[in-house]
Amino acid sequence: MSGGARLRAGVVGAGFIGAVHARSARLAGARLVAVAASTPESSRAAAGRLGAERACKSGEELVAADDVDVVHVCAPNHLHLPLARAALEAGKHVICEKPLALDDDGAAELVAAASAGGLQAAVPFVYRYYPMVREARERLRGGRSGPLRLLHGTYLQDWLSLPADANWRVERRLGGASRAFADIGSHWCDLAEFASGHRIVRLSARTATVVPERSASGTAAFARRDDDGPRQPVDTEDVALVQFETDGGALGSVVVSQVSPGRKNRLWIEWDAADAALAFDQEQPELLWCGRRDGVALALRDDAALSAPAARFATLPAGHPQGYGDCFDAFVADVYAAIADGEAADGLPRFADGRRAVQITEAVLGSAAADGAWTAVPAPALAEARP
Amino acid sequence: MSGGARLRAGVVGAGFIGAVHARSARLAGARLVAVAASTPESSRAAAGRLGAERACKSGEELVAADDVDVVHVCAPNHLHLPLARAALEAGKHVICEKPLALDDDGAAELVAAASAGGLQAAVPFVYRYYPMVREARERLRGGRSGPLRLLHGTYLQDWLSLPADANWRVERRLGGASRAFADIGSHWCDLAEFASGHRIVRLSARTATVVPERSASGTAAFARRDDDGPRQPVDTEDVALVQFETDGGALGSVVVSQVSPGRKNRLWIEWDAADAALAFDQEQPELLWCGRRDGVALALRDDAALSAPAARFATLPAGHPQGYGDCFDAFVADVYAAIADGEAADGLPRFADGRRAVQITEAVLGSAAADGAWTAVPAPALAEARP
Amino acid sequence: MSGGARLRAGVVGAGFIGAVHARSARLAGARLVAVAASTPESSRAAAGRLGAERACKSGEELVAADDVDVVHVCAPNHLHLPLARAALEAGKHVICEKPLALDDDGAAELVAAASAGGLQAAVPFVYRYYPMVREARERLRGGRSGPLRLLHGTYLQDWLSLPADANWRVERRLGGASRAFADIGSHWCDLAEFASGHRIVRLSARTATVVPERSASGTAAFARRDDDGPRQPVDTEDVALVQFETDGGALGSVVVSQVSPGRKNRLWIEWDAADAALAFDQEQPELLWCGRRDGVALALRDDAALSAPAARFATLPAGHPQGYGDCFDAFVADVYAAIADGEAADGLPRFADGRRAVQITEAVLGSAAADGAWTAVPAPALAEARP
Amino acid sequence: MSGGARLRAGVVGAGFIGAVHARSARLAGARLVAVAASTPESSRAAAGRLGAERACKSGEELVAADDVDVVHVCAPNHLHLPLARAALEAGKHVICEKPLALDDDGAAELVAAASAGGLQAAVPFVYRYYPMVREARERLRGGRSGPLRLLHGTYLQDWLSLPADANWRVERRLGGASRAFADIGSHWCDLAEFASGHRIVRLSARTATVVPERSASGTAAFARRDDDGPRQPVDTEDVALVQFETDGGALGSVVVSQVSPGRKNRLWIEWDAADAALAFDQEQPELLWCGRRDGVALALRDDAALSAPAARFATLPAGHPQGYGDCFDAFVADVYAAIADGEAADGLPRFADGRRAVQITEAVLGSAAADGAWTAVPAPALAEARP
Repeated sequence: MSGGARLRAGVVGAGFIGAVHARSARLAGARLVAVAASTPESSRAAAGRLGAERACKSGEELVAADDVDVVHVCAPNHLHLPLARAALEAGKHVICEKPLALDDDGAAELVAAASAGGLQAAVPFVYRYYPMVREARERLRGGRSGPLRLLHGTYLQDWLSLPADANWRVERRLGGASRAFADIGSHWCDLAEFASGHRIVRLSARTATVVPERSASGTAAFARRDDDGPRQPVDTEDVALVQFETDGGALGSVVVSQVSPGRKNRLWIEWDAADAALAFDQEQPELLWCGRRDGVALALRDDAALSAPAARFATLPAGHPQGYGDCFDAFVADVYAAIADGEAADGLPRFADGRRAVQITEAVLGSAAADGAWTAVPAPALAEARP
Repeated sequence: MSGGARLRAGVVGAGFIGAVHARSARLAGARLVAVAASTPESSRAAAGRLGAERACKSGEELVAADDVDVVHVCAPNHLHLPLARAALEAGKHVICEKPLALDDDGAAELVAAASAGGLQAAVPFVYRYYPMVREARERLRGGRSGPLRLLHGTYLQDWLSLPADANWRVERRLGGASRAFADIGSHWCDLAEFASGHRIVRLSARTATVVPERSASGTAAFARRDDDGPRQPVDTEDVALVQFETDGGALGSVVVSQVSPGRKNRLWIEWDAADAALAFDQEQPELLWCGRRDGVALALRDDAALSAPAARFATLPAGHPQGYGDCFDAFVADVYAAIADGEAADGLPRFADGRRAVQITEAVLGSAAADGAWTAVPAPALAEARP
Repeated sequence: MSGGARLRAGVVGAGFIGAVHARSARLAGARLVAVAASTPESSRAAAGRLGAERACKSGEELVAADDVDVVHVCAPNHLHLPLARAALEAGKHVICEKPLALDDDGAAELVAAASAGGLQAAVPFVYRYYPMVREARERLRGGRSGPLRLLHGTYLQDWLSLPADANWRVERRLGGASRAFADIGSHWCDLAEFASGHRIVRLSARTATVVPERSASGTAAFARRDDDGPRQPVDTEDVALVQFETDGGALGSVVVSQVSPGRKNRLWIEWDAADAALAFDQEQPELLWCGRRDGVALALRDDAALSAPAARFATLPAGHPQGYGDCFDAFVADVYAAIADGEAADGLPRFADGRRAVQITEAVLGSAAADGAWTAVPAPALAEARP
Repeated sequence: MSGGARLRAGVVGAGFIGAVHARSARLAGARLVAVAASTPESSRAAAGRLGAERACKSGEELVAADDVDVVHVCAPNHLHLPLARAALEAGKHVICEKPLALDDDGAAELVAAASAGGLQAAVPFVYRYYPMVREARERLRGGRSGPLRLLHGTYLQDWLSLPADANWRVERRLGGASRAFADIGSHWCDLAEFASGHRIVRLSARTATVVPERSASGTAAFARRDDDGPRQPVDTEDVALVQFETDGGALGSVVVSQVSPGRKNRLWIEWDAADAALAFDQEQPELLWCGRRDGVALALRDDAALSAPAARFATLPAGHPQGYGDCFDAFVADVYAAIADGEAADGLPRFADGRRAVQITEAVLGSAAADGAWTAVPAPALAEARP
């Protein structure tokens, strides 16, 4: 049992991802003491559904509650900053969904507040918790693959491919100025940097809104609607193309789309180093494709064959598929262990990583607004730099 | 939260699979009140590791404990019968690992005892809980695919491919007369029958022990050893080949092996019906291959596209991989719900299914001992027949 | 250019496979001097279509023609024996489609006649000519993989899955007593033995005719029909299941079917040896799956990485797919080179191999007729044994 | 037999691709009357190797020879323009390898010369001849997939990943100012446009030379070298990243690399339209991935299921793999038929297409030189526009 056995968790936001947080919190040994959704009524329903001990009338109430040690912020994007700020001010540890804030000022404030308060503050870049991602990281950062020259890939979804598809994320007011990139492109960039140790320092981007009007009433993420009701203009991007340079001298490219039919959650990334190329497909996460000049190996999620940092997350024997839920569980367990121990395990994504995603997103939007002009991405502060 | 919220669970056996049971029990909302392993010392260690409230000195103590509602029997095979019997006699609900017993007499006794006591008694044929297995079942049993003509496949592993690989399962005395078939072949047959509604009525089998001697001291399942210690003869099979007929007039074939290098847990099965063929690969469980004369479709684990019985187990959006752990969680949740409601959800694998696996295993060994003579498999009693 | 530059070839039979022979003959540098089909009219049409210099009125005329050096026998199965016999008697080299004859007596006669005449006599087991099959052979026979323990697989097609599907092969009178096994199962067994060096010595088989009646009027192989005309009973098998033992002590299993929807030409085979397993999929022939305990490699058809016997057939750079046509071309080129040089290249499938397929087929039918009784397969005569 | 039965072909250049041309010419029924390589000696050797009737002392001699109807220009890139010009001036039909010329002036001159002479003039963008590429084209251009929004992919190779890898293409003087993009990126763009009917009108590009020095002495394409001889600076790119807009309002992105270990010839492209996405992988050319919101289909290269324009190139039954050689054969056959008939079949890649590749390449280099500035690509002249 993890060190978080007696930790008291509260979850704000009870959509798909809130339920995922609640499950992982319970599995990590925490008590799920409180849940808050958008209204007192929905909070009560959510408490029952997620198995929480009680419902709070509002997120504000929850983040201030005396009996909560750690707050999971799973509300819509525009509420991340105020809720996380209030939670930190109340001395709570925080796990906050990305984007950490709708602009870099907000994200910087949260990083500073967490640091000042000596609180654990994490962002669920959970794809880092696939064992084969850790294996890629060991092979790339440990020098076994030679210098990285090129990294490229896609993050494609289709749940917003139709005009009838609507969601609060589509609205800039609620979701932020960037949608496709901030929501999923940020995951891709986090993985790209996390595994390689390289940092994106300069980028050129194009964005497009290919579904110009959508249903006016939003629905839950990944849900579908058939209605023919009123439509409203869309002010966030469906597609983003980004090229970039890294501080290590590599070039990169990523295609981000939420309108690619048949692609459900196709985060695919390839790192081409001098001696080996590695490719990871989030939809087949038990494999790592390893190309060399003289052949291809498929590294399996088999603890006997993995490096130690990857084997740490191999909780089932090879061939018994681990999935997204296992990543989330491992992430939350690591956060809770950090709360208990005061020390974060290697690779834990923290608010500094969440801020970095905001900065890259701002650079993407800035470049796109300037016809793809190459645009600098701020370097992470030393204190925030990944070791 | 499932109906098992306040259920009190005990786990006997603390190896790989005991930990899996404990996790799923907690996630289903049960209290894990007690754990027992092979000695008082190992029980105490296991209680800490699995987060149980206390350790029992022995399995016997646990199955009789007043504060346990449901017992998970995860001890070595030869203990399944006595522990399950004692638990049922003590009025406990039971989840017992397969093989339910080392022979059909034992299995029949347990089926009768559970029935007499009005207790829930389940066997973790958990592969039934992959959503795409349920989807295959809907397509095959609902008549959308035409009459089933042929079903075939493999179940291949490699963790016993070397003489240094040892485990208590290798010993007939502890694991039973059949090893490869009873351990994994039984899963394949359960899936084959479960999805198709057909029953194997007659079979012909060959078995082989290709590693005639192994290390004398056993290790945990899926673990590896390098020692050069003493060896002992192996008296269980590494490989089984089975051909069979079903009550619905289909022919079938399966290859079972624990000595196929590079195959970790390759349960692969294809159902060839008149109008469509379906194939499922447990190592890529998010897909169902669907062949028709005019093309191939890959059905995705996407609740919007699945039949209702399959969608019930799709707990994450498509493209966010579910895995083996999710199957186990769903299975235990269904057992606990059956305990709470007195009624089992569709597809719950029960002791009758466990007995059937024992009967098929006995037919396999019988045929193999008679140079592959075609051998009848008992028909399930009406009361036990799948609806 | 191959040694067959000035060779004069004649083709009897002008269906799909006759055209394939004609193409390969031309590519190997031969003159295609004559073609014969089922009637003088169809012969003339075929000569035009295949680019032959002239049409013969009949196969009998062609095999006796003075200006033909090598005869390709591509007529329906029941004509193989008389045509090949006549060609050999006329002193022609022969490439004869399988089955060489409808029974072993006929096949034995042809083997003897070719030997007596000092003539090249080959059977197009062309799957041997995939470079990755040769690579598998090197790895299995060269000892790099350890002793072979188990070999298994499938050969599945769907072009006869419907009652409307008809073809002369369906009729025992024209195609022989075995259809699915003789037509495709024989290819699987040839590959299994060819790559491993093992010989099937004993087998148990089941067959089934799952489409009991078919359209009375046949069509070309792989073609489709929609008519609702008269039907006639089918007297050949659609499905065959075979288990076997080899002279090297391995067990094997193969599933053969021409009624598996969506499977076009799924010849899939896995050889499980002690240290490595190899798997080949004829529909993705540029890869060889290589499993070891500690991981999986995908060997590519890349001449720089292949053994010399495999690289000999890698005629394009890796990544530029070679296919079935390339196999056929290489086979015919090797036959023609053998004619020119009087010496056959390693791996050339000869009449002895064709006879072996007939013997295995007879054993399959014999076992199936005896409820799967284990049945001996004759050992190849020493002179015919593969080196 | 194609209409080119009596056509007299000559091939200039006898490397890997020259041999491919020679084979396809023979298979299309032409006489291979002459071959020329870089020296009289190598010409004689090549004539023997390729089976030509005679050797010419030089390419200049061959293109002027009276007995040659069609010239295949397969010499290094800097010779394409002078050889093709001379051949056209001599009234020969021409198949010229890409790049047609080292700059647009040269390419335009050749287009004009071919047009003025009424000669067939083709460029082997042979990937157009995969049946599944034609199928994609039918689905995209016929409106079955909805408006195209996004197209993206990669073209990755590894045969130039090491400093020891050298080839004349590496030298700007012999291969032209662009290497990776001109050599393989041009294929990708041709396919992208060909299948979609869209035209790239504006692009932004980055290039990189990641192996700054290579062995001074070149070798054949796709060959390897191990020597440690003298090195020289590389003045052509190893990697190109390109983003683009089309005249139909779609965005696109492609990653081109010749330094990606394990990638042999990974031309992969996805077209994301509103209702369906299609993806094609040149290394698995028998499939077309077809994504829709409610599932994925794998279209097979099965003539019964293909559109007529795709089925025209399906020469073998489904499941009998066609490959690169079959594409080349079909391309040459179509060129020869155009020579015979005076009319080109749909989809034949002509000099105008070759010129277009030169124009796109110039835009790529221009943008890369201007830090990725978005750069216009000339529109094809009306007469050259694809119907």
